[in-house]
Amino acid sequence: MKLILEGKAKKIFQSKNKSHLVQYFKDDATAYNNKKKKIFSNKGIINNLISSDIFNYLNKNSIKTHFIKRINNREQLIKKLKIIPIEVVIRNYAAGSLVKRLNFKRGMKLREPLIELYYKSDSLNDPIISDDHAILLNLAKKQHLNKIKRIGLKTNSLLINYFKKINFILIDFKMEFGTLKKDIILADEISPDSCRLWDKKTKVSFDKDIFREGKGDLLESYKEVLKRLKIEEKNV
Amino acid sequence: MKLILEGKAKKIFQSKNKSHLVQYFKDDATAYNNKKKKIFSNKGIINNLISSDIFNYLNKNSIKTHFIKRINNREQLIKKLKIIPIEVVIRNYAAGSLVKRLNFKRGMKLREPLIELYYKSDSLNDPIISDDHAILLNLAKKQHLNKIKRIGLKTNSLLINYFKKINFILIDFKMEFGTLKKDIILADEISPDSCRLWDKKTKVSFDKDIFREGKGDLLESYKEVLKRLKIEEKNV
Repeated sequence: MKLILEGKAKKIFQSKNKSHLVQYFKDDATAYNNKKKKIFSNKGIINNLISSDIFNYLNKNSIKTHFIKRINNREQLIKKLKIIPIEVVIRNYAAGSLVKRLNFKRGMKLREPLIELYYKSDSLNDPIISDDHAILLNLAKKQHLNKIKRIGLKTNSLLINYFKKINFILIDFKMEFGTLKKDIILADEISPDSCRLWDKKTKVSFDKDIFREGKGDLLESYKEVLKRLKIEEKNV
Repeated sequence: MKLILEGKAKKIFQSKNKSHLVQYFKDDATAYNNKKKKIFSNKGIINNLISSDIFNYLNKNSIKTHFIKRINNREQLIKKLKIIPIEVVIRNYAAGSLVKRLNFKRGMKLREPLIELYYKSDSLNDPIISDDHAILLNLAKKQHLNKIKRIGLKTNSLLINYFKKINFILIDFKMEFGTLKKDIILADEISPDSCRLWDKKTKVSFDKDIFREGKGDLLESYKEVLKRLKIEEKNV
């Protein structure tokens, strides 16, 4: 298969069908715009299994996603999109940059979900942007941004329930979108790499903050997410 | 007079009338959140004269401002407001942080005026925020932000013309607002300290960038603005 692009945590290959791609999950973990790096053996497998389960769930609940099916432990078949270079973050509780940048109290429940946009640019360090910046930078049109926010909020509601059932609080998560003809489609992955998940009782992190902050055992925590989701983990 | 507060470039005193204040213009110039500092003898006088002229012009053109009258070379009588801790920046051309943070081409005319909000907080380094951040931080209500933007855009149109007549391009400028009963009122100052002004022909800066970037003679440039405005400068 022809490699189309290699990101920090995934590789994208061309599929036989020209309108499909294969998304391969690597074991690399990166944080702080690639300043901190580590390989966690089999993390890619765990994230592929979790993200596949989530995208299946979203597909069944009327969210249009790029996900077609999981091929094997490492790979997914996905639709080829024109990716919009914006990271869309939805926050339900304050954590991470909201605490550092704006001094919100960590763990504070927000009155309503907060949507933030970040310009995907390694050289600029993924700066936060407004709708107006996105439009002036020709990243997306106003009507696309409005649609992205509507889909994002619906996805957030679905994921809050998805994780609530297995006793996790969805603190925040990141999405990426693309266009396919005139549709806005949810792309990329949703996994403990791209979410903040806190245990409902203990408020302990089961996500990439374990790596960012060097606290706890990342693989064991990700496996616990798999286990609570009752996903077969025989090959992990 | 009782000192109410001292900022980087101004002091605010209580006036005899309880609903009025006296705004005193200092000679201090600061940049990069107070990391760079210098005193420019009589800068305060020049800025008081320019800002008074601008606020008189805005008052006459139906913008509600805190400005009542200039008292003397250093002081203005102003209305006492409840200040909203947001810096409102309107940009017509790319410069400053838009170039550094988002890689816009310096001097590029924006398709339409861009409004940015910054949270006034020295300890957080005045971070850029969205409407949603401002609301969650209880800095302002949505309807206040909408009104601020409407007033800001009208002020921008008026100032573009004001400076165009004296052969300056208004690249961008900063505003602060306050509330008085139910009204939203333009506050603070508008001067070469808070605007970027480029000569129409040479594109040379006649504003605080001279100090930020250590190029040229700040006082001579500010005096040139005064001169083009035909403001009496006998005491400067």
